[in-house]
Amino acid sequence: MILVGAGPGDPDLLTIRAVQRISIGDVLVYDRLIQQGVLTLARPAAEKIYVGKEPGHHTRQEEIHALLVEKARQGKIVIRIKGGDPFLFGRGGEEVEYLAEHGIPFEVVPGVSSCLSAPLSAGIAVTHRDASSAVAIVTGHNAMGNEDRLQWGALAKIDTTVFLMCVHNIEAIAQKLIAAGRSPDTPAALIQMAYWDGEHVITGTLRNIADEARRVQIAPPATLVVGEVVRLRNKLQQLMASNLKPQEVSI
Amino acid sequence: MILVGAGPGDPDLLTIRAVQRISIGDVLVYDRLIQQGVLTLARPAAEKIYVGKEPGHHTRQEEIHALLVEKARQGKIVIRIKGGDPFLFGRGGEEVEYLAEHGIPFEVVPGVSSCLSAPLSAGIAVTHRDASSAVAIVTGHNAMGNEDRLQWGALAKIDTTVFLMCVHNIEAIAQKLIAAGRSPDTPAALIQMAYWDGEHVITGTLRNIADEARRVQIAPPATLVVGEVVRLRNKLQQLMASNLKPQEVSI
Repeated sequence: MILVGAGPGDPDLLTIRAVQRISIGDVLVYDRLIQQGVLTLARPAAEKIYVGKEPGHHTRQEEIHALLVEKARQGKIVIRIKGGDPFLFGRGGEEVEYLAEHGIPFEVVPGVSSCLSAPLSAGIAVTHRDASSAVAIVTGHNAMGNEDRLQWGALAKIDTTVFLMCVHNIEAIAQKLIAAGRSPDTPAALIQMAYWDGEHVITGTLRNIADEARRVQIAPPATLVVGEVVRLRNKLQQLMASNLKPQEVSI
Repeated sequence: MILVGAGPGDPDLLTIRAVQRISIGDVLVYDRLIQQGVLTLARPAAEKIYVGKEPGHHTRQEEIHALLVEKARQGKIVIRIKGGDPFLFGRGGEEVEYLAEHGIPFEVVPGVSSCLSAPLSAGIAVTHRDASSAVAIVTGHNAMGNEDRLQWGALAKIDTTVFLMCVHNIEAIAQKLIAAGRSPDTPAALIQMAYWDGEHVITGTLRNIADEARRVQIAPPATLVVGEVVRLRNKLQQLMASNLKPQEVSI
């Protein structure tokens, strides 16, 4: 089994190694947020199995585990494709752990993670000599009710914080950071669908970014960046070639 | 000017877009830690300028800025190649900021960062449903004397912390994390030269990882991972295909 990181979206941002691995697969097991251009790199005869998690089309994690083991035991070259990097959130670690427990050898191919590349696409370097010497990466899912085991006091003190998959929790995230001591005036940017059609960026502050996201109806997937580094975007965006352009909003 | 992230080492881990951009360059301006196999993707006629920072062969940041502007103004396609991701440490943000101030258009191509891929190469997922819901990324350079503006109290509370370029400061890092409240028994791994010949991994705890690094003479570049996720390596490494194998040490 080969677990492959497909990067943030555009097939252009696959690594050479990822392209090679996908091209030899007998079976592709892929999530939501994998572009068609990635799947077309497979052999025409390859079996393609969608296991994305979205309302009404949801494969449970245990079923994915069982599927990977079953296909691998049939002697097939199984390519498990995940968006971004396969070992940052997204349960890639758990999947190979399960394979290891069942004695199945595997390889893991790293990918370009949206934790850095989504801000980058918006002209934001998450670290900067003058403005940020540390970055924390969190998934927005963890900011919800009972699942919240994050140390908000600590997160509020890290120069830059990046929240992946955060659209539904952006208000709670902003409130918790402010309650934990981060200034409401801290710059914030929300990047929708980096490296996809529909890429869209809004900027503001911790105080108003949730309202603005609601107003312009930012949809998943989106990445939130909080910190002074967001200001860099103002200096860069005019001269930076990017996928953006069409529908940018800046507040 | 095109700022390109070259990934962690192996040219195989360049993105398709990076390969394409490197192949059209008139001038390549590259750092230390760029493998020869990356440079050979350039046209034979391309000018290759090394600006790496190491003792006795050191180009000041201001000189790099001036060089990029000069070559771009000559109408050349300038490819600025950085290891890993160009917007995580390494001053990529500053370089394009300088270009923007001088009216020079640019593009930035994201890369596979060693902050995730070095742990991955050692069988460590930096986040895990049970063990880690947040990861902080720091450069070891910032852990030194006067330059230390890190919030160690906050870093000690984040589930997983990754320190890049940390070999010379590993003892100070471990001491500061312990002084800030992190248990001396927290698992730690040090990955030397991920995706290069000479890749080498040691594991231990915050208490003993610096001693062990000294004992086996870990050399730069190396990445330190601190957190319970390091234990995952024990479950994965036997069945994980990787660049590793030859000279592993586990304590």
